[in-house]
Amino acid sequence: MSAAPAPPSAVVDLLGLVALGELFAFDRMAADARLAPDLRRRAELSAMAAAEMANYRRLADRLTELGALPDDAMAPYVTALQAYHDSTEPKDWLEAVTKAYVGDAVADDFIREIAEALAEPDRQLVLDVLHESRYADFAAAEIRAAIEADPRVANRLSMWARRLVGEGLSQAGRVAAADRGALTGLIVRDGAGDAQKLFRRLTAAHTERMAAVGLNN
Amino acid sequence: MSAAPAPPSAVVDLLGLVALGELFAFDRMAADARLAPDLRRRAELSAMAAAEMANYRRLADRLTELGALPDDAMAPYVTALQAYHDSTEPKDWLEAVTKAYVGDAVADDFIREIAEALAEPDRQLVLDVLHESRYADFAAAEIRAAIEADPRVANRLSMWARRLVGEGLSQAGRVAAADRGALTGLIVRDGAGDAQKLFRRLTAAHTERMAAVGLNN
Repeated sequence: MSAAPAPPSAVVDLLGLVALGELFAFDRMAADARLAPDLRRRAELSAMAAAEMANYRRLADRLTELGALPDDAMAPYVTALQAYHDSTEPKDWLEAVTKAYVGDAVADDFIREIAEALAEPDRQLVLDVLHESRYADFAAAEIRAAIEADPRVANRLSMWARRLVGEGLSQAGRVAAADRGALTGLIVRDGAGDAQKLFRRLTAAHTERMAAVGLNN
Repeated sequence: MSAAPAPPSAVVDLLGLVALGELFAFDRMAADARLAPDLRRRAELSAMAAAEMANYRRLADRLTELGALPDDAMAPYVTALQAYHDSTEPKDWLEAVTKAYVGDAVADDFIREIAEALAEPDRQLVLDVLHESRYADFAAAEIRAAIEADPRVANRLSMWARRLVGEGLSQAGRVAAADRGALTGLIVRDGAGDAQKLFRRLTAAHTERMAAVGLNN
């Protein structure tokens, strides 16, 4: 069943959410880069962070083009995203790369699903700001190498990943509860079952990614 | 008088210094962006930070091409650059933009002077990583607006800028003292007077920039 095009307010809400996600991800990854054991790896995570800002700029420009102030479009999500990052501050390098690996991927899956509800050019814009796979590859390689060096690491990072997902879902719930209807309208197009199906798809993809680096869900 | 081309070790030393400068500037501006009074300005400083990483990548790639490990090329400067940033941590938004304005410009002037001692393609690479003027324009506008709103701000920020320059010079002295000769060889090509003349040119440009935003040296 093909849905009607998303109303402009829904587009602004969604772009605002994604833009703030980029801005906060930049901030936290930049800070987490200090946990790197050497300058090379510090530069890698810093570059991952910097890539978020190029995406942020494109989203903010599009919001302006749509007649919205980026700050206003982002404002409704500040509390939830801030709370997510505050409650998931990595305490070492492996927690930092695991957070980047897990968080970016779940965010990308979510964005990819939502993009399908948008008309062009917003659909393509949102698909364009998905993370480059070389960053995920870098994070995955770091996790795998650490587990190979010390298998006990797998247990600790699996627990950490579960906490990341738990905190993420809890804050996603807050976003949905505060939503004025436009955003959830993008997800729940054919009935309440949509949200459940989306949730199941995101969880399945996450479980697969965990297994790929030697973590269990 | 035209000098002989810089020896490869001098090029590696210089690119290492500039690369580490970018990596540390990224880190500090990203952290300072949290001091912004709103998301728009936070995003501006974050974008300034992100631009440093694009430059970092080009410099690191060139170092690799020259057969040097970027980490090794940067290592001699970690202590001095870390000390500069640790001793000049901004405590509010205006100190942060003033630091970005003053620091970027002095670094650019220095880099521009040094570039002249390099052969291509390194000369052009080093000129390419100079900061985009729109970032300086943004920082300058923030400083001017703050002084207009409260003229007493000029005094406080003038003192802050003097401290930035003082700390910068003190750490530059440490870099020169620790240098194995190759780097200072790029500056002091025609005799010790070169360093003094370079210093005078950098100071004059700095004084002019201070005046342009309503600060005094």
